Amino acid sequence: MNVLTETKVITTTIELQQLTTKLKNDQKTIGFVPTMGYLHEGHRALLKEAREDNDVVVLSIFVNPLQFGPNEDLDSYPRDFEHDKQVAVEENVDYIFYPSAEEMYPKTLSVTVNVQKRTDVLCGKSRPGHFDGVATVLTKLFHLVQANRVYFGQKDAQQVAVVDGLINDFHFPLELVSVPTVREEDGLAKSSRNVRLSDPERMEAGILYRSLAEAREEMIKGKTDINQLRNRLVADIERESSGKVDYLEVLTYPDLEQPKNLSGRIIVALAVQFSQARLIDNIIFDL
Amino acid sequence: MNVLTETKVITTTIELQQLTTKLKNDQKTIGFVPTMGYLHEGHRALLKEAREDNDVVVLSIFVNPLQFGPNEDLDSYPRDFEHDKQVAVEENVDYIFYPSAEEMYPKTLSVTVNVQKRTDVLCGKSRPGHFDGVATVLTKLFHLVQANRVYFGQKDAQQVAVVDGLINDFHFPLELVSVPTVREEDGLAKSSRNVRLSDPERMEAGILYRSLAEAREEMIKGKTDINQLRNRLVADIERESSGKVDYLEVLTYPDLEQPKNLSGRIIVALAVQFSQARLIDNIIFDL
Repeated sequence: MNVLTETKVITTTIELQQLTTKLKNDQKTIGFVPTMGYLHEGHRALLKEAREDNDVVVLSIFVNPLQFGPNEDLDSYPRDFEHDKQVAVEENVDYIFYPSAEEMYPKTLSVTVNVQKRTDVLCGKSRPGHFDGVATVLTKLFHLVQANRVYFGQKDAQQVAVVDGLINDFHFPLELVSVPTVREEDGLAKSSRNVRLSDPERMEAGILYRSLAEAREEMIKGKTDINQLRNRLVADIERESSGKVDYLEVLTYPDLEQPKNLSGRIIVALAVQFSQARLIDNIIFDL
Repeated sequence: MNVLTETKVITTTIELQQLTTKLKNDQKTIGFVPTMGYLHEGHRALLKEAREDNDVVVLSIFVNPLQFGPNEDLDSYPRDFEHDKQVAVEENVDYIFYPSAEEMYPKTLSVTVNVQKRTDVLCGKSRPGHFDGVATVLTKLFHLVQANRVYFGQKDAQQVAVVDGLINDFHFPLELVSVPTVREEDGLAKSSRNVRLSDPERMEAGILYRSLAEAREEMIKGKTDINQLRNRLVADIERESSGKVDYLEVLTYPDLEQPKNLSGRIIVALAVQFSQARLIDNIIFDL
């Protein structure tokens, strides 16, 4: 059997929903991996986990205009469908949903989802409306795919937190699976953007994860002066690399609020700007 | 068998979703009638239709705080659960979902639904945010009930239009069934509010539906001067009754836009204020 024939591409919402309705009637479990394409190892980790847990795996590839701001890089966002399809075949994806923007938004939506919490911190601070676009397209996709489980990478922790709120507050009958970040040997989180690092920058970049791990260790040991810890780690990163720290925040997870007392689940998250690449990473742990 | 034992009351979201997940796995079709309680004959018509079409009927009774404005009558909204339960038993409802406000909104939602279209006309004009509250609670309820079909009365045509947009634009795997308005012998739409009409007002109130029917007749015959028709009908109503016309609008349906040319589906809708009751009604037809 030719494996290439096993991965089917679907481009219309109607065909997708008819298919998933039939799958549900046949009591198949569906795992869903929503992406904007240009798949890398992080996506493979999601697809592998979805493959293990479910009868059917649906991958969506859609560069969602709604989540790009007016000054953001919608048009230049990287696309490579043939490569993505090859990845999907290799990861035994059953269906690729690959709609056009006209298919997803034939006219202005009469309804949108508004994200009211978890957006005014981390990357959300500088991207007003971004998570509204994410939550709106996911609401559409969740209904089209009718999945049992949806998979997101923990690397974009704020997205996971927002989706956690979306699923819980709206009671989507859907389990959110957050997949641990895939890392290089020195701890650097894998990302399509890492290729934009210069060789020296790549050598230095391990400091990001080492700083996060140090924050975790110190807080678990009982460190309570978060400001001092923050300032020291920012100084470390900026001394040991040429990166400029955009933010390094310590928040509750998944509410993404300032911790009132240091207990419960905590996230330490950072964004660091290198010459051609802005990298993000985070670590989540319980106190 | 005692019929009273057949209608089960559920008060928690978890119990409801566990139940409906089981029903879906058993391939049962579910019909859903969302209400704010204080059930009247209009609701009975919805329940009867749901009973005919589906294996299982779920009725929700929830006075949704989110859809009341700060100056609206949330606290004084009429409630009579024992009566409603009796109606549910008589209409062979399987499950009543009757949650508290705390159960539906344990904390401020992290996401809400925003209705972007179909709201700045008819009753929506004077109720900013009302349909956001409606669409948000329905999104929650739709996921909890996992229905195949949801039933709304055509009498609140704007609500039906908004829900039509919600279901279509978000691809809820759910069929919207709009049930024709139940009328008295003189054409007056049945409503809980009719009891607030004085005897003379009740005698006059047949003019509302007669005016709508006249609008339909004239437009089907080819009348194109909508403003003149509107003005004449408003004058008729205000001459032949003590009611004051709040609005009488001719719009496309379900988009609720000003008709560019007189073809396709049209709604003529009105609201008339009597001394103690504001009545609404509408008629929908194809040109």
